[in-house]
Amino acid sequence: RISWISNIIVVVSPENIETMKSIIEKYGHKRVMIVKGGITRHRSIFNGLKVFVENEFSNHLLQKPEVVIIHDAVRPFVEEDILSKVVMAAKEYGAAGAIRPLVSTVIASAADGCLDHSLERARYRASEMPQAFLFDIIYEAYQQCTDYDLDYGTECLHLALKHCKTNAKLVEGTADLWKVTYKRDLYAAESIIKDNLSQQVCVITDVKEAVAQIGFLLHESLKSQVKVEAISISLSRNDSHLQNIFSGQCYNFVCINDKKYAIQETQQLVDMLEKSNLPLLYPVVLISMHLDISEDISFSIGMEELTRIKKFAGEMKKKNILVYGLLIQYK
Amino acid sequence: RISWISNIIVVVSPENIETMKSIIEKYGHKRVMIVKGGITRHRSIFNGLKVFVENEFSNHLLQKPEVVIIHDAVRPFVEEDILSKVVMAAKEYGAAGAIRPLVSTVIASAADGCLDHSLERARYRASEMPQAFLFDIIYEAYQQCTDYDLDYGTECLHLALKHCKTNAKLVEGTADLWKVTYKRDLYAAESIIKDNLSQQVCVITDVKEAVAQIGFLLHESLKSQVKVEAISISLSRNDSHLQNIFSGQCYNFVCINDKKYAIQETQQLVDMLEKSNLPLLYPVVLISMHLDISEDISFSIGMEELTRIKKFAGEMKKKNILVYGLLIQYK
Repeated sequence: RISWISNIIVVVSPENIETMKSIIEKYGHKRVMIVKGGITRHRSIFNGLKVFVENEFSNHLLQKPEVVIIHDAVRPFVEEDILSKVVMAAKEYGAAGAIRPLVSTVIASAADGCLDHSLERARYRASEMPQAFLFDIIYEAYQQCTDYDLDYGTECLHLALKHCKTNAKLVEGTADLWKVTYKRDLYAAESIIKDNLSQQVCVITDVKEAVAQIGFLLHESLKSQVKVEAISISLSRNDSHLQNIFSGQCYNFVCINDKKYAIQETQQLVDMLEKSNLPLLYPVVLISMHLDISEDISFSIGMEELTRIKKFAGEMKKKNILVYGLLIQYK
Repeated sequence: RISWISNIIVVVSPENIETMKSIIEKYGHKRVMIVKGGITRHRSIFNGLKVFVENEFSNHLLQKPEVVIIHDAVRPFVEEDILSKVVMAAKEYGAAGAIRPLVSTVIASAADGCLDHSLERARYRASEMPQAFLFDIIYEAYQQCTDYDLDYGTECLHLALKHCKTNAKLVEGTADLWKVTYKRDLYAAESIIKDNLSQQVCVITDVKEAVAQIGFLLHESLKSQVKVEAISISLSRNDSHLQNIFSGQCYNFVCINDKKYAIQETQQLVDMLEKSNLPLLYPVVLISMHLDISEDISFSIGMEELTRIKKFAGEMKKKNILVYGLLIQYK
């Protein structure tokens, strides 16, 4: 996703290595190498860093980077902007990390389980990820670590300070960098993804004026709630405008037509979606809206059409495309 | 909800007092008094405490409590257990507050925006709510407060320590005590409520054996996923078993029957639900399942039935009861 990152080392606990391999293969991730994790956070990170310098990985030996980013998988919503900021700061200061304001006051407890003192909230920050380091600094810091550091420490910025006298630059991160920790955080993460996926809808009609007009009206009534693109094209031809919409990460399509066999039209769109790899990561929603204005339509023909759409939708679901059929008959 | 709490003082910003009054009236909350908030957290809490001692509230003068609980509206999932724990601890220690482990490391930043030092995560805790105090201690602490305390402080435990030399007892709280702060926290809160509401379903059939049998089969197939109560009763009579289910906070009902006019049966259940006040706080889901085994059924009669259910569901929605009709015809 981010071209200026040369290599991605994923440190995984031994029992999850096969799962991780299958994920990388399934989603076609590039530049990724898997390394076996240790029994603590710091031991795992150290294992990841060793890949760039130790001989045991010689058949994969990667070029030692100037700057390395350390990130947690529990913070899935990391944006290029914050990655770029911590990297630039690490180049200048040797180390850098994302921070957030504290949500609750932090207190120290005494041995008897009572309050010892409370910290003034404004003077402290929560240390989040991503963090970035000049490779030589963080690697040196890990080499200097005692077993106690490796077993009980959790903070990379602390290691850079303790062992290399490097005071990390602190960079304000976005709220979405929070650590997915509790069950409720999974709900929150799911909702953020759904929110992102429903930002945009593309209304596609064929070029016939009556149908294009309906697409236009739908665009007008939706545009106050969501970003809408309305295009009139023939789906049988490859269309660069539609390709742009795919690469703009639009996950919702309304396909309006008045043809006899709506499914053929929809199938063409499905083929294009599949080629775009869009349904690989998230489900694509496709509403196939069939207008039937013929005079002699019977109810049973409508039912047949609906049955066909239902069967088609069942097949498409396996491809992560959620097809909904809407049949509108009017005289 | 909790009988041993005598009075509840809700401190509200001036512009929200009318809204809060209407909420209290709508949900029939008892023992609640509204007090105008100040411009900072501590000034608001102080206003709330004054109700028990100052003359300006004389026409409402409440008995001064031995222990007072201070809680934030941003932590909606507070259980009786933690309230009871902080109150008992406050009686013994003078002050007590809920704490949680820190999720991220806390760091102090220097004036130049760089890391000054990081705190050892295991030695510190996040201070959460609820907190409880001997009334005389926390009131004395607020009276001793400087304007600086009142304007910039956030931690009540700190005030009790600073002004009354009271080291609060720290009580481990549940994860659900987190502070609803960001948009994602609203999603999480919504999901927790939905989760709680979908813990239990009640399957109601009339006493006819064929119908009761279907209720039994539904119970069997659902019981591995959710807590299911299946009962066979005549809805025209008041049933104590059903009343117990209402008071056990069951929000989901499947009502199976084979009568000609399913809606009459459903209407009886709706009436009982309304009387129970169950739909006041959260929506109740009611699936009305109508089995039609008559030989001479036509499709159009089925459609009529569905139209009736749809109209009925529209009316019930205003009462916070979500009715779904399921019409099953078989020969």
